Amino acid sequence: MKSYPIAKSRRVRSTPYTSRIEKQGVTAYTVYNHMLLPAAFGSLEESCDHLKKNVQIWDVAAEISIADSDVIFFAKGLASGNKFDVKIFEPIVDILAVQGPKSFDLMEKVFGEKMKELKFFGFDYFTFNGAKHLIARSGWSKQGGFEIYVENTNSGLKLYDHLFEIGKEFNVRPGCPNLIERIESGLLSYGNDFDNNDNPFQCGFDKYVDLETDINFLGKDKLKKIKEKGIDRKLMGVQIDLTKILLTSSLNIKNNDGNIIGELRSACYSPHFKKVIGIAMIKEPYCKASSSGTIEIDGNSLALKVCDLPFI
Amino acid sequence: MKSYPIAKSRRVRSTPYTSRIEKQGVTAYTVYNHMLLPAAFGSLEESCDHLKKNVQIWDVAAEISIADSDVIFFAKGLASGNKFDVKIFEPIVDILAVQGPKSFDLMEKVFGEKMKELKFFGFDYFTFNGAKHLIARSGWSKQGGFEIYVENTNSGLKLYDHLFEIGKEFNVRPGCPNLIERIESGLLSYGNDFDNNDNPFQCGFDKYVDLETDINFLGKDKLKKIKEKGIDRKLMGVQIDLTKILLTSSLNIKNNDGNIIGELRSACYSPHFKKVIGIAMIKEPYCKASSSGTIEIDGNSLALKVCDLPFI
Repeated sequence: MKSYPIAKSRRVRSTPYTSRIEKQGVTAYTVYNHMLLPAAFGSLEESCDHLKKNVQIWDVAAEISIADSDVIFFAKGLASGNKFDVKIFEPIVDILAVQGPKSFDLMEKVFGEKMKELKFFGFDYFTFNGAKHLIARSGWSKQGGFEIYVENTNSGLKLYDHLFEIGKEFNVRPGCPNLIERIESGLLSYGNDFDNNDNPFQCGFDKYVDLETDINFLGKDKLKKIKEKGIDRKLMGVQIDLTKILLTSSLNIKNNDGNIIGELRSACYSPHFKKVIGIAMIKEPYCKASSSGTIEIDGNSLALKVCDLPFI
Repeated sequence: MKSYPIAKSRRVRSTPYTSRIEKQGVTAYTVYNHMLLPAAFGSLEESCDHLKKNVQIWDVAAEISIADSDVIFFAKGLASGNKFDVKIFEPIVDILAVQGPKSFDLMEKVFGEKMKELKFFGFDYFTFNGAKHLIARSGWSKQGGFEIYVENTNSGLKLYDHLFEIGKEFNVRPGCPNLIERIESGLLSYGNDFDNNDNPFQCGFDKYVDLETDINFLGKDKLKKIKEKGIDRKLMGVQIDLTKILLTSSLNIKNNDGNIIGELRSACYSPHFKKVIGIAMIKEPYCKASSSGTIEIDGNSLALKVCDLPFI
């Protein structure tokens, strides 16, 4: 498929790391939260393989909001409507992710042994070059790693360069959230796999929704009703015997009678599975691992198998 | 400057017209409201010149929200906080713009004489191919034209093709909001020229803010205080003797003492003025037409003149 350049402007914000990643060979961008988010450094397959074995530094400054949404407006609307006396603002942080199995050794080399004591999703402050950085053991891959919430840009840029310098022994490379790795791992993407028209139970987020708590929260009653009624569709994994795919919008999935039973929302070729895998919203009663369907890609009708998430 | 491909995905939504504009030679995209918005069809200068003399069809499906923002979340937050019993949803419309001085003849040829009776920002329903379309005399250029709020996609696609077919005599071309034309015309862009940190008076929107009305509205008291106190900065035009510029983030503007007196937020080379023109937020007391300053571009310190908006 032909590629199209992205037109840069102030509205599509660059990050403090943009000039660095462009020197380092970024080959595609997406836009996330009105910011440039690197989408590829050469082959997705090679980057995925490297990420699973080594360590990568990611410019994920675009992560300043909750997913790709101006959710800050929701908070401002709520505050205004409820007449709350609060100040609501976006954090000024330029987030770096350090991802991959060797991220632990690399980060220990910079920040000391304490880094390895951080629990999953734990965080603490660490000093580099005279500035304090909040570092969390988190990140948008399942290969392990950290996110660094850079408030002091100068120190952050020095840290960025330092990580590459001393990371050579760990085979460090620039990278970005990897489409293949995130689909294999079942890391869902707002706007791709689900959006405002899907509820948490349809997305498999049951374990993050506690309806028995005494604490009240927005939508609690509605979610109780939804749970009682049961869901009519669910996000599932799918597999297609195909060696490549480039999905730019949803594709309908049909049963043998030609009726639509769901839609494919994300997909990639997985070198691990040697086939195309994807994430699809599948209707009842087809949203279970034994189902099958067909999908039309480039004019060919192909068989598709439904499976559980995550793939790995 | 090197260009970088945009990575497409379901999250960065295509429009019903995307496949058409790609066949027609779109050469750059930006992302607006999580959608692909064409940013160029070849040279910006040539497109600007064509727009001023002829008629263009624009895929502006990305215009579904108020500027490039999920402002729907603000409305949802307000409704929740105020316990309003309302349903809030994005309109499902794929907007086409027909812009340029010959748009009136083209649209009359399709929809009849009634089209020319529409007043500026007036609108009405018009039928094409059995479907009704809301058409407004509006659009993001100052060359005159219309916006078509397509609800029936099939009819909209037929209309799109029909406009090109019967528009040959008016020298119709595909186009998009043009950076040069919109800066010359002083059409402000949210995210480029102003954002949440600027108030309406700083943006020159005084005439759209009625503080004397009996109707209450959000921020009325705050705006009264701001107006009483007066503004400390204002959006102004600037001119620089330069033959090209590519602005990807703000650039500081300084006075002769080296103090920052403002920032350049949008800029382009204008063939009409034979220099670079731009939109800048300029501090008091420099935000008036007689001021001057300096700006550093590609390592060169250049003289800059402040002027009123719009340029034309």
